Amino acid sequence: MVKVAIIGASGYTGLELLRLLAAHPEVEVTAVTSRKLDGQKVTDVFPALAGRLGGLDDQIFESPEAKNLTGRADFFFTAVPHRTAMEIVPSLLEGGGKVVDLSADFRFNEAAVYEEWYERHQVPELLSESVYGLPELYRDQIKTARLVGNPGCYPTSVILAMAPLLKKGLIEPDGIIADSKSGVSGAGRGLNMTTQFCEIDDGLMAYKVIGHRHTPEIEQELGLAFGRPLFISFTPHLVPLSRGILSTVYAALTQDSSDEELLAVLNEFYKDDVFVRVRKKGELPHTLDVRGTNFCDLSVFVDRRTGRVKMISAIDNLTRGASGQAICNMNLMLGLAEETGLIELGLRP
Amino acid sequence: MVKVAIIGASGYTGLELLRLLAAHPEVEVTAVTSRKLDGQKVTDVFPALAGRLGGLDDQIFESPEAKNLTGRADFFFTAVPHRTAMEIVPSLLEGGGKVVDLSADFRFNEAAVYEEWYERHQVPELLSESVYGLPELYRDQIKTARLVGNPGCYPTSVILAMAPLLKKGLIEPDGIIADSKSGVSGAGRGLNMTTQFCEIDDGLMAYKVIGHRHTPEIEQELGLAFGRPLFISFTPHLVPLSRGILSTVYAALTQDSSDEELLAVLNEFYKDDVFVRVRKKGELPHTLDVRGTNFCDLSVFVDRRTGRVKMISAIDNLTRGASGQAICNMNLMLGLAEETGLIELGLRP
Amino acid sequence: MVKVAIIGASGYTGLELLRLLAAHPEVEVTAVTSRKLDGQKVTDVFPALAGRLGGLDDQIFESPEAKNLTGRADFFFTAVPHRTAMEIVPSLLEGGGKVVDLSADFRFNEAAVYEEWYERHQVPELLSESVYGLPELYRDQIKTARLVGNPGCYPTSVILAMAPLLKKGLIEPDGIIADSKSGVSGAGRGLNMTTQFCEIDDGLMAYKVIGHRHTPEIEQELGLAFGRPLFISFTPHLVPLSRGILSTVYAALTQDSSDEELLAVLNEFYKDDVFVRVRKKGELPHTLDVRGTNFCDLSVFVDRRTGRVKMISAIDNLTRGASGQAICNMNLMLGLAEETGLIELGLRP
Amino acid sequence: MVKVAIIGASGYTGLELLRLLAAHPEVEVTAVTSRKLDGQKVTDVFPALAGRLGGLDDQIFESPEAKNLTGRADFFFTAVPHRTAMEIVPSLLEGGGKVVDLSADFRFNEAAVYEEWYERHQVPELLSESVYGLPELYRDQIKTARLVGNPGCYPTSVILAMAPLLKKGLIEPDGIIADSKSGVSGAGRGLNMTTQFCEIDDGLMAYKVIGHRHTPEIEQELGLAFGRPLFISFTPHLVPLSRGILSTVYAALTQDSSDEELLAVLNEFYKDDVFVRVRKKGELPHTLDVRGTNFCDLSVFVDRRTGRVKMISAIDNLTRGASGQAICNMNLMLGLAEETGLIELGLRP
Repeated sequence: MVKVAIIGASGYTGLELLRLLAAHPEVEVTAVTSRKLDGQKVTDVFPALAGRLGGLDDQIFESPEAKNLTGRADFFFTAVPHRTAMEIVPSLLEGGGKVVDLSADFRFNEAAVYEEWYERHQVPELLSESVYGLPELYRDQIKTARLVGNPGCYPTSVILAMAPLLKKGLIEPDGIIADSKSGVSGAGRGLNMTTQFCEIDDGLMAYKVIGHRHTPEIEQELGLAFGRPLFISFTPHLVPLSRGILSTVYAALTQDSSDEELLAVLNEFYKDDVFVRVRKKGELPHTLDVRGTNFCDLSVFVDRRTGRVKMISAIDNLTRGASGQAICNMNLMLGLAEETGLIELGLRP
Repeated sequence: MVKVAIIGASGYTGLELLRLLAAHPEVEVTAVTSRKLDGQKVTDVFPALAGRLGGLDDQIFESPEAKNLTGRADFFFTAVPHRTAMEIVPSLLEGGGKVVDLSADFRFNEAAVYEEWYERHQVPELLSESVYGLPELYRDQIKTARLVGNPGCYPTSVILAMAPLLKKGLIEPDGIIADSKSGVSGAGRGLNMTTQFCEIDDGLMAYKVIGHRHTPEIEQELGLAFGRPLFISFTPHLVPLSRGILSTVYAALTQDSSDEELLAVLNEFYKDDVFVRVRKKGELPHTLDVRGTNFCDLSVFVDRRTGRVKMISAIDNLTRGASGQAICNMNLMLGLAEETGLIELGLRP
Repeated sequence: MVKVAIIGASGYTGLELLRLLAAHPEVEVTAVTSRKLDGQKVTDVFPALAGRLGGLDDQIFESPEAKNLTGRADFFFTAVPHRTAMEIVPSLLEGGGKVVDLSADFRFNEAAVYEEWYERHQVPELLSESVYGLPELYRDQIKTARLVGNPGCYPTSVILAMAPLLKKGLIEPDGIIADSKSGVSGAGRGLNMTTQFCEIDDGLMAYKVIGHRHTPEIEQELGLAFGRPLFISFTPHLVPLSRGILSTVYAALTQDSSDEELLAVLNEFYKDDVFVRVRKKGELPHTLDVRGTNFCDLSVFVDRRTGRVKMISAIDNLTRGASGQAICNMNLMLGLAEETGLIELGLRP
Repeated sequence: MVKVAIIGASGYTGLELLRLLAAHPEVEVTAVTSRKLDGQKVTDVFPALAGRLGGLDDQIFESPEAKNLTGRADFFFTAVPHRTAMEIVPSLLEGGGKVVDLSADFRFNEAAVYEEWYERHQVPELLSESVYGLPELYRDQIKTARLVGNPGCYPTSVILAMAPLLKKGLIEPDGIIADSKSGVSGAGRGLNMTTQFCEIDDGLMAYKVIGHRHTPEIEQELGLAFGRPLFISFTPHLVPLSRGILSTVYAALTQDSSDEELLAVLNEFYKDDVFVRVRKKGELPHTLDVRGTNFCDLSVFVDRRTGRVKMISAIDNLTRGASGQAICNMNLMLGLAEETGLIELGLRP
């Protein structure tokens, strides 16, 4: 059993890591940290994880002092805010650990991009080593990585939809519009007026209409897929559900294409990827079909009247969009089958 | 008191008409029809409408035989499916009544467009007489009309967002993308597996991704606003809430513009329109702010990186998107102040 | 127009007071206070209230210094926490104002009861003057009162269900069980982990299972209805909806009774009360039927197998359970018809 | 691998059986029937079950002709309506199969009770053989049974809460009140106006207030626990969530007891039961903590003012209340550890 630690486990991504790792057959959780929950039992904070049956009754939140953790685990998930991650990760690596970081700190290839959208990068030299943790695009690099930057939830949903068509030159790289709708857990577990029940129940809004920080991450990967930098228009929305992202992505076709042709491209591209389910012509992804799973469901619709394609992708933002994908990356980094501990079908209804 | 009849009142738009008309100070409901509910008390079907206090305890659903209704009312709302509307409306007009039709049958200027998206039109000669019932665009024509085609819910939300900018030539007419998210009441009150609670609660999907019938309606009005025909990409989504549409509409700017400049255009355009609330720079429309009301809340966001504008509009699909707008049209056709009976603020939370 | 001030308008009951008063034909809001929102525009905090059409665009939150408010208004709603209310109310009365207090401070007849469940009462002499603001039970006293203690949401729903049967001696006073389910707005507008969307969406829990402070309020009024003190078992639950309380109340019958007999008692008891709708035999109250209104819908079900009756009541906790009832009380205190400004039917769906 | 067939898999309990069995390590699904879906691919109806990764892509719904199924499987789940079950089960048993029936047909010990609440029983002789499938009460009998009547969802939640206290004589057997709140999936997957999204979203109602058919089932088991027949008052409610039942059960204490004493009784009673989690003093069960799992979370609250106890239980109605419990029973009948294939923690949020 590989020893695994979670640094910063008080949020929803931490909770989701714990839920999934509790049932993982090849690892054991040996440390769970949270500065604000220091000393509390994990199952007092998260009763869903309790019980003799696969539960985590013995886990106690600890203060996250990285030095103490070295030696306590061989593998680390850092589920802390950006900046905090880059302060912690180097010492974990120096201690011989492998790391999947769920913040934005190690997702970018170039420090300049990170610094434009976030702040000064403290360990830019690690950016060339870290691998962007989207297994369908970087599986081989992930397998040998010490450090993986786990993708953002929105980027996961948009990149999986568009990268294959861009690589094939089937869509125009300019003018791509990604309209994404997210469940509320994407806003995290902190207190927040916008995400109080009565402020969003039975209602709907866009937010961060200009300048959401997932924009450059999508642009980096779609630019690499196409072969040159590009800009996208990205708009996130908050919808009254807990888990799930549906992204509707619009692009102009470079040539006349049919649904069948584009589906063939997608099916070929993802032929070895068990976590991508390309739906049949005319079928509609539904976030409930992927709830609690690492799946990404994809559909394609050609609109002949406008010469555009509409790609639709559905993921669970906490599983595929964060913790499930992080575990998939861990599996690859540990030499395990990537689906280990992730074989679960969507909880529907 | 003007006598008003509702033809086809068994659905959610019928229910919303009844709710609003019960409190309207200048009209009385004298007939309510539904073939399938014939003989039932309105308040047995809709207990929300019961009570001595403004309730409709005396109303009984009748079979909708138009001849019998002539003379029973001076004003008619037809809230029946398309095709049924064009079978009924001519005799209502002949009987001397005025009509607001909530179906698609009288929304189009050209029979050819209707026939491409729906079916053969039975009374194409009425299309030149009927007025598209968007008061902000056609107030004067509505005032003198005998017949108004009440706009669809999605078109209302998209047209109000884009028409001012198109009229001013500030955005490109080609490549407009309207991504709309609707509450479930938009699907009507019929039995439907897709709208069973467990099939959409806590989930999210797109539907009719290609070819939704509100597309040509939006294109007609935006084309008229710009001055020549145009095509749009329109995608509707089903979100787990009862009332509300949020439309996010993307267009390329024809020239460099700021939020302030575009807001000034909107404020000028809607300066006499009490039911449009142009939000201040940076503010975000929320469907809860318009719930149960005839308001349309609008925001504008310029994305300088991509040279595009994102317009966001929020309406209540049953009120502004159907029955509230229908009553507003009735008010204009009867010479009343357009806000009569519609002065209500959003039910939030 | 009567001048009205709202002291403490930053919460959901304040928002609901503002929504309803904006449309009230006989009053105008002249002052709105909130210590934490001091200086902010009301419509910046609550955009639902904006607009030239009945909106409150000119209102600014002020600091709540009671002395300054004297003279600014003739009528006051105090929507502040308990204790704060009893600090403010005396000076408002001394200034010649009439007051409806929405806290618990003036609901109890005996200071000892208040002090057992809350804290020391600072102005116990006002308790004999203040009237419990349930119009169906105390209409005449309310009409002449200077000070009304507006009932709690749960007590309103339980007392209206049980008082008539207790007064008639039809049910046993001991062993009454009130199982109440409330929408989340009952928890107020503050930041709270329990009421974050993801903590209650698609889930359900009981809370304050023992010792909820609405218990003595229910016991006071049901004891008065029966003629001697009694105890009840009361359990509140949090359900994933914004507005609405459904109370299911169980009591043993003192004699064999039928649904018809008990319905006759209720109909007789409430024959002059436009805001109580006694449903017909077998019909089921639904919180959606009363949403946004001052109605209380009641049903009765005799269970012959167990010799018990089950009473079911539905209210909107923010309207009938707080602000609508407060306005109803104001209407009575001002000599207006009690339904003034409250003629609205349930927003369904 | 044991061959397992599901008779009647078109509903939510069928879907939940499929979801869980797909991941079960000791069985394979060899037949799935549905008369109305005959010939359709399972994953076309339920896309959540699709994929190469543990999915059911090869399954086709068949017509449920029991004779053909004999030999196709060694174990059968009958997830059909009552009456249909008793028509099918005898031939399955004759063919040598073991059966867990999810209908009400084999839950009762006495045909007379079944016939009072349902209809004439066609194979009353099987009632003495069939075992009531609540493992905590009947584990040993289940292990050797050919036929298990799987408990109803509400009875599971109420019986687990009350049986220990009744067995110990700590509560009065008369006057027990069970107030249960269920998610909408309990109403099944059929088309139904009451469970259309807009009819229950953001609302709440009681239903079948008198005479719900789960009443005699609860009475049978609680009567057996106490030692003589008893009556209960049971009221089900529909709340706007998909999965989950919270039951609040009230009973008079026979003697003064503390929370600690009653918790000790529960902990002793369930000391070998991994699927019951007795919460610590003061903790509150939440349906989200058991979502998607076979757990039942229990809490106890003594109300000294009234001499009553309030027991609160939370289950997932589709898992513990139906399909998860059915699989637990199958495990026992097959000699497997009862938790096989059921080790999953609650999906929260």
